[in-house]
Amino acid sequence: MSAQDTVLVVGAGPAGLSAAATIASMGKKTVIVEKEDILGGAPIISGYAKLVPSGEWAKDAIGRMVSRVEGDGNVSIHKSAKVTQVAGEAGNFTATLSNGDKVEAGAIILGTGFTHFDSINKPEWGFGTYEDVLTTTQMEQMVSAGQIRCPSDGRVPERVAILLCVGSRDRQIGREWCSKICCTVSTNLAMEIKEISPSTDVFIYYMDIRTFGLYEDKFYWKSQEEYKTKFVKARIAEVTMSPDGRLLVKGEDTLVKRPIVIPMDLVVHAIGMDPNTLNPEIAKTFGIGLEKHGFIDRAEQYTNSQGTTRKGIYVCGAATGPEDIDTSIAQGQSAGARAVADLYGQQKVAS
Amino acid sequence: MSAQDTVLVVGAGPAGLSAAATIASMGKKTVIVEKEDILGGAPIISGYAKLVPSGEWAKDAIGRMVSRVEGDGNVSIHKSAKVTQVAGEAGNFTATLSNGDKVEAGAIILGTGFTHFDSINKPEWGFGTYEDVLTTTQMEQMVSAGQIRCPSDGRVPERVAILLCVGSRDRQIGREWCSKICCTVSTNLAMEIKEISPSTDVFIYYMDIRTFGLYEDKFYWKSQEEYKTKFVKARIAEVTMSPDGRLLVKGEDTLVKRPIVIPMDLVVHAIGMDPNTLNPEIAKTFGIGLEKHGFIDRAEQYTNSQGTTRKGIYVCGAATGPEDIDTSIAQGQSAGARAVADLYGQQKVAS
Repeated sequence: MSAQDTVLVVGAGPAGLSAAATIASMGKKTVIVEKEDILGGAPIISGYAKLVPSGEWAKDAIGRMVSRVEGDGNVSIHKSAKVTQVAGEAGNFTATLSNGDKVEAGAIILGTGFTHFDSINKPEWGFGTYEDVLTTTQMEQMVSAGQIRCPSDGRVPERVAILLCVGSRDRQIGREWCSKICCTVSTNLAMEIKEISPSTDVFIYYMDIRTFGLYEDKFYWKSQEEYKTKFVKARIAEVTMSPDGRLLVKGEDTLVKRPIVIPMDLVVHAIGMDPNTLNPEIAKTFGIGLEKHGFIDRAEQYTNSQGTTRKGIYVCGAATGPEDIDTSIAQGQSAGARAVADLYGQQKVAS
Repeated sequence: MSAQDTVLVVGAGPAGLSAAATIASMGKKTVIVEKEDILGGAPIISGYAKLVPSGEWAKDAIGRMVSRVEGDGNVSIHKSAKVTQVAGEAGNFTATLSNGDKVEAGAIILGTGFTHFDSINKPEWGFGTYEDVLTTTQMEQMVSAGQIRCPSDGRVPERVAILLCVGSRDRQIGREWCSKICCTVSTNLAMEIKEISPSTDVFIYYMDIRTFGLYEDKFYWKSQEEYKTKFVKARIAEVTMSPDGRLLVKGEDTLVKRPIVIPMDLVVHAIGMDPNTLNPEIAKTFGIGLEKHGFIDRAEQYTNSQGTTRKGIYVCGAATGPEDIDTSIAQGQSAGARAVADLYGQQKVAS
């Protein structure tokens, strides 16, 4: 394969898988490089339950995207590999992989995603201290397994609290951004908990509920009206434990301006999206820029869609900031189209 | 041009322009049909000021997208025309236009957009009754003209109120959805007003502030901290007029649970996004489905990105629900890629 025939796609989450499938569907070759030993990105690696907004299980929906590229003759896949070096320029890149292979590519697409916020960095909210304080990711795994139980003693929880904005909208810990999708994911999770465990009451503690667009009635209203999720506008100070072993969520109800201390059996952190911890390394390897929070910087979006600060290198999905799966897929397809246009452009010059 | 070489794009807003440019960039022919006599969609036709999040003037940013397709030999354009009939099937559609022309196309992309909510349908908030109650669109036109004045008497307003969720999140008037982008557009507008008229105080009345993702600090925090925009969490009941001719915004401050009556010089309705009023006609003409609110229904998004309920017909942008411009552009490019893949598929079959 010559560089002019091939696009290198880095990362095999929803965005990268979508980019690769697009390139292959237009008859061009693509090489996927994924650092994990499994394809599918966060929804598969972290074991997400039912996806927003489709309601389809992650393993089925993203699994279908994985099968599509695995079964395509135009797609080659390197798992457990990273790009360690990039030489050349737009139209004629050579990437060296950690497994020693080299890939020649006319264009490169980064679908390198994000890192889940680590709740250890918000210690006053009890994660790492109390067994029954979990993250949304851990709770989704519990939903996938079909049983809602307190890890400490296996009892069915009477009351579950979901705390929004853990690692989001929080200047104190250096996370100024909103993670975009946690509100909707949490309203969905509240409904899933209730379906498995109808006797459990679910409370969502929030600053602003951001179920934007068509998520509004499908998730926020439905969760309240059909599943009786209680929404509490509150500023949480800390999570502690009562003498009888229940978790205490302490803070201020900002609607009634009163301190609240509510006993809970399970507390779930709706963890935000951090920039991929590898972004500084990725920026250096690919010669691209990062924006001020540490996500990958984009070119202007009107006539250079999915562009980065370097010609011939594109980006899609949560690599550029918090993003939902559907938009990540659209961006992946968009990036794939840009890269294919590059290849045809190169051929035109060559002919 | 045979059907196998051509994609029909309906609508020339950011989504449709992006789709057409993508198709052309990959060496395929595209025909744009736009019902207005000008290209650019809502940002141009409604005279938007600076776009979110780029800060670039709409006429420049979208104007560049227009120039790109106008100067491309692969793109033909029909203005002031509608598609009145579609015959055939995926790979071989024939569309009849209102100007009598026929277009043969292998695939069709709908970038048919939305309709701004008409504030006349929320009469208790004063639009249509008082001269100094405007919509965000009218206010953006004032910003573009560089002068902030009360239409009634030309004075510089001391106090401007922006009311969020006008035609959004309002079951009473049949708008259950959130319009996704009004919060960010309004925080941006507040800053633009302040830049032109530093003596004016701007108040934003909101239910939840939805400046999601990287909009959070760039718009919400910046607007508060650098431009002193006042955010009031309130449920507005009505806008009336005081004996001395000032507008009175009446409602309940939902944080302090107290009734409020605040005098204002200008009141701006942050108008939401309705389904395109033509959608029932579009659904019939193209043989596609609408979702329950009246937006164009989508296929599953994981392996049929930008699909509608009909094979070979794709959709992008705000036609499917409230959408921001950057995502509309990504979706347009994504739809263009799907359509080009169809054409190559057809050729493969034919060869």
